[in-house]
Amino acid sequence: MSGNAHSAAPVLPAQGRLRPLGLRDVEITGGFWGERQSINGAATLQHIEHWLEREGWIRNFDLTANGGDPGERRGREFSDSEVYKFLEAMAWEIGRTDDAELESRFRAIVRRVGAAQQPDGYLNTRFGRPGQAPRWSDLEWGHELYCVGHLLQAAVARARTRPDADDGLLDIACRAADNVCRTFGPDGIDSVCGHAEIETALVEFARATGQERYLTQAALFVDRRGHGRLADVEFGREYFQDDQPVRQATVLRGHAVRANYLAAGAVDVAVELKDAGLLDAVRGQWRNTVSRRTYVTGGQGSRHQDEAFGGDWMLPPDRAYSETCAGIGSVMLAWRLLLADGDPRYADLIERTLFNVVSTSPAADGQSFFYTNTLHRRELGTTPDTDRPSLRAAASLRAPWFEVSCCPTNVARTLASLSAYVATCDDDGLQLHQYLSGTVEQHLADGRSRRVRITTQYPYDGQIRVRVDSDDEHPWSLSLRVPGWADQGATVTVDGVPRPVAAGVFTEHRAWRRGDEMVLRLPMAPRFVHPDSRIDAVRGCVAVERGPLVYALESVDVPGVASVDDLRVDAGRPPRLLDGQVLVRCRQVRGQEHDWPYRADAVESAPVPVDEFDDVPLVPYHAWANRGPSTMRVWLPTDTALPEPAPGQP
Amino acid sequence: MSGNAHSAAPVLPAQGRLRPLGLRDVEITGGFWGERQSINGAATLQHIEHWLEREGWIRNFDLTANGGDPGERRGREFSDSEVYKFLEAMAWEIGRTDDAELESRFRAIVRRVGAAQQPDGYLNTRFGRPGQAPRWSDLEWGHELYCVGHLLQAAVARARTRPDADDGLLDIACRAADNVCRTFGPDGIDSVCGHAEIETALVEFARATGQERYLTQAALFVDRRGHGRLADVEFGREYFQDDQPVRQATVLRGHAVRANYLAAGAVDVAVELKDAGLLDAVRGQWRNTVSRRTYVTGGQGSRHQDEAFGGDWMLPPDRAYSETCAGIGSVMLAWRLLLADGDPRYADLIERTLFNVVSTSPAADGQSFFYTNTLHRRELGTTPDTDRPSLRAAASLRAPWFEVSCCPTNVARTLASLSAYVATCDDDGLQLHQYLSGTVEQHLADGRSRRVRITTQYPYDGQIRVRVDSDDEHPWSLSLRVPGWADQGATVTVDGVPRPVAAGVFTEHRAWRRGDEMVLRLPMAPRFVHPDSRIDAVRGCVAVERGPLVYALESVDVPGVASVDDLRVDAGRPPRLLDGQVLVRCRQVRGQEHDWPYRADAVESAPVPVDEFDDVPLVPYHAWANRGPSTMRVWLPTDTALPEPAPGQP
Repeated sequence: MSGNAHSAAPVLPAQGRLRPLGLRDVEITGGFWGERQSINGAATLQHIEHWLEREGWIRNFDLTANGGDPGERRGREFSDSEVYKFLEAMAWEIGRTDDAELESRFRAIVRRVGAAQQPDGYLNTRFGRPGQAPRWSDLEWGHELYCVGHLLQAAVARARTRPDADDGLLDIACRAADNVCRTFGPDGIDSVCGHAEIETALVEFARATGQERYLTQAALFVDRRGHGRLADVEFGREYFQDDQPVRQATVLRGHAVRANYLAAGAVDVAVELKDAGLLDAVRGQWRNTVSRRTYVTGGQGSRHQDEAFGGDWMLPPDRAYSETCAGIGSVMLAWRLLLADGDPRYADLIERTLFNVVSTSPAADGQSFFYTNTLHRRELGTTPDTDRPSLRAAASLRAPWFEVSCCPTNVARTLASLSAYVATCDDDGLQLHQYLSGTVEQHLADGRSRRVRITTQYPYDGQIRVRVDSDDEHPWSLSLRVPGWADQGATVTVDGVPRPVAAGVFTEHRAWRRGDEMVLRLPMAPRFVHPDSRIDAVRGCVAVERGPLVYALESVDVPGVASVDDLRVDAGRPPRLLDGQVLVRCRQVRGQEHDWPYRADAVESAPVPVDEFDDVPLVPYHAWANRGPSTMRVWLPTDTALPEPAPGQP
Repeated sequence: MSGNAHSAAPVLPAQGRLRPLGLRDVEITGGFWGERQSINGAATLQHIEHWLEREGWIRNFDLTANGGDPGERRGREFSDSEVYKFLEAMAWEIGRTDDAELESRFRAIVRRVGAAQQPDGYLNTRFGRPGQAPRWSDLEWGHELYCVGHLLQAAVARARTRPDADDGLLDIACRAADNVCRTFGPDGIDSVCGHAEIETALVEFARATGQERYLTQAALFVDRRGHGRLADVEFGREYFQDDQPVRQATVLRGHAVRANYLAAGAVDVAVELKDAGLLDAVRGQWRNTVSRRTYVTGGQGSRHQDEAFGGDWMLPPDRAYSETCAGIGSVMLAWRLLLADGDPRYADLIERTLFNVVSTSPAADGQSFFYTNTLHRRELGTTPDTDRPSLRAAASLRAPWFEVSCCPTNVARTLASLSAYVATCDDDGLQLHQYLSGTVEQHLADGRSRRVRITTQYPYDGQIRVRVDSDDEHPWSLSLRVPGWADQGATVTVDGVPRPVAAGVFTEHRAWRRGDEMVLRLPMAPRFVHPDSRIDAVRGCVAVERGPLVYALESVDVPGVASVDDLRVDAGRPPRLLDGQVLVRCRQVRGQEHDWPYRADAVESAPVPVDEFDDVPLVPYHAWANRGPSTMRVWLPTDTALPEPAPGQP
């Protein structure tokens, strides 16, 4: 094996179809993701630290260390995890940029965290001290193991980016993990955490430390879940996936973050233990989840009440929950399956989710965030206070912080480690999964390396130029993913000859010389997409996509129209592109006013045409809500009354 | 004024366009509502008492009376209110039936309640004792004033049905109400209860006792709300209507039960104080709520998270919350507005809500209940345990009891007092608002009375025969409501001559003699109804109604079809009636399987025809889920592919 055993990447499986390349192998040099990564490093990390201090969530560790009054502890039961996710984000960012000032901030927080650890390794600011609930006394809601999981992931990030650091984080994590293994081992507490996370973290910690006991414990947690060990709750045991064993489940269900984290952990366990049955179960869950329970944005989870998946086809755009963290969890899961199987459909979903969920959350300045990512906003709604944590997950604008602030730190760690999700290698060569400007390099065991430079304006332009930057007389394979949405009209040019390619993976095997090029051209005409007929909530609607981006109609772009809900799109005329803007033709209608909105006479229920607009501009969904409160739709009702244009007409 | 000053009715305004007739004036003698009222008396009341005892919610009063350990108190913070609603239901039932055994059970519970009252009148088992949170320390969630409100309503029911009873309930209520006035008066705590209810209760208590101070306090509570006196919460202050003053609001919003209870109280205050502005504000809220935020069943509240109204047109049938108690609250509000204004549209909504929400909740045996009343069930779902309180508001079958068990007692008090919502009088005569077999009598001050007997199989048959059962040489008016849904095809026959009548009120003024008859005939052909174009979630669907009943497609009736979601209704052929069954023509379709459910090619998203069914039976919505777990739809997608039948074809 070569090229990844010591990569600076969050996920390093011992086996699998593809091997990850990490932060030392992939550099993002600009463009859509480069900008976001820079803003994350330059602004978001500081923003997060400010709020973690302001809200006292780091100080909780000092309080614990100093034996202070537990009544002074602040934040929710899972607030420790935000500090750990912040540490993870910093660790990746330091690995990426060698930022010395960040390094010292990182070490300072690690010291404060470490000081709060109990002699036996237990580490949590909410439980276990006099005046607090006993350790492990509330597995359903206490999040203690969840918090340890995030601590381990931070330590893994640090160990892989600064293997020789003497900051002590790895020790802290080892003692916490050992405490978990002692407490929840075969002879310990026979249960699981209400929020999955420890599973995937323990496997990665085993990979990072080479200690098999952590893997064993992760496997035990995965097997234990699904047998009703946790108490029944209002949302049902499916809320924490304790309704059905992972091996038997056929679809993700319940809380969408929990479900994805658990499935990611199950893949990790399955891969390490070569447990084909377990892996296959998760594969099937993923397939059914993607084909029946996922929004067009890639978002998952439709319900506010329990932040949960709905049933099959239950995907209302109204108040779609589509939590940012569920999107990140979905990327985590799909990435693990991609490494295991190599199937480009996993990378398709990652692309869609990164562009339309993960990148939607942070504002352009990286200092406010969407927690939920609805597909329809009917009212301007409430504007979050910029000077206090939002009580609410949903709002019309991004908020700087939340009472439950899982999303900002999750976005930060994802963006800081984003280059780890771009490309993979195997013994034959390199595979490019996500397109951005940058370089990708595979170091071979014999000192050689395979290196390519990617130049593109993607996702705004469909041309992706891949130039080989290394010489090798031995032939190797360079593989490009052709996205599912690009099934018609994509071409690859090698040696100056463009060839049509279908969705999937295009591989060119040859003795690549420096300067050789492959150019992938993806069809970038904007297009309508039609929902499956079983998604009741968007019957009679279309969405608009261009490349990997989903578009939205935002009321600030139709100033003469009271609400985006008054527009009907002409589905007979394809959306068109003009000066970089996606435009659709719409009719403005007015609903009829009646005392009672259900009429025996269909005509009385029909809307009345008011006006027509030839070119209504849409915005990329990720860019909405950046110009003040707005109403917004992703799914546009079609105007069946408009005449059908002649076939082929633009 | 005559005919209602001492009626045994829940609402007795000092003025208004119409005056209520109570339990002594209206008798229901059988049929749809007669059966339900009998079962309520014969089975539901006992069932409720069993669970109240079993769950310890009555024993909480003993615990308080005996100074027992507060840690032994059981149930949620509002469980006292269930005991009070049960007392109210018993009071009406005793008034209706003179049941001596029920009378002694009633008195026994009143004694236990009274023993828990503090010397200063404060009465609540959850707050105020050593080891409990202090009185009034949690106005947002504590429900203390809400509980007092239900105590007052029980006392009002008792005072009006047994004015001379020596059971002590009225005294208990007086002392509790006085405690509220002292504590929350102009110089007291300047706030309101997180759950409106005390407002309407205090007005009625003022009416029943003649003590104006209760009305003054109610008016103060109404005026105080809407100014942000309650803390902001995750759901926003609109959850408890503290976002906007009642006078300024234009629509009901937030928690649907709270919103309706508050609006009912505001009407009560407005009517008593002749506050035209306040009354007009609520009128407007009602109009906008009914025309934009109400399900076709009359149900209100679409959200699970906060049991709240959605925005305008946000009426997804999936997981429609449509709480039974919100339906009852809506009946309370519409009834008060009907008394104030006389507008038959209020009675239209009452009819719709009684037949399609209130009667949907209890099972045929009166011993299990729907808490929520969804309009679409995609999966069989969980079957409630029959031997423990349900943790969940939503389930596929009715549950015997709930952790939050507001609905069973609310249904019980409504059914026991149902005859008070049937008819009204004014100086000119009688108005019939709801149709059922029974008698209605108006006692005049001079000893005369006007009396009619109604004979009908309604809602299964559209003929309503109203026979005058009194003689009076003075002419008086007999008014019949012609429901909004019956605007086309209704006739009234007087003197043997049928005359077409439009929706609204038909009044015949004459010197009625015993044996005179009016026959109202309502068009009972089943019909499709079409939703307003702005209700996105049911675009392309129709519902089926017959008379006042909404119908549903239930999977037990299509045994060959996996899910009701696989059927498309032929909207070109009107539903037909055969042997009392409503039948529609459907095509069975199969969705196409794809990895990703959003396709650029519309054909790939379209369903594939599988089979056709000429006559698929529907069930009245209120009768669904009585034959085991089932999937169910009220809104049926139309099959646009089916050929249009020739006009006029059946």
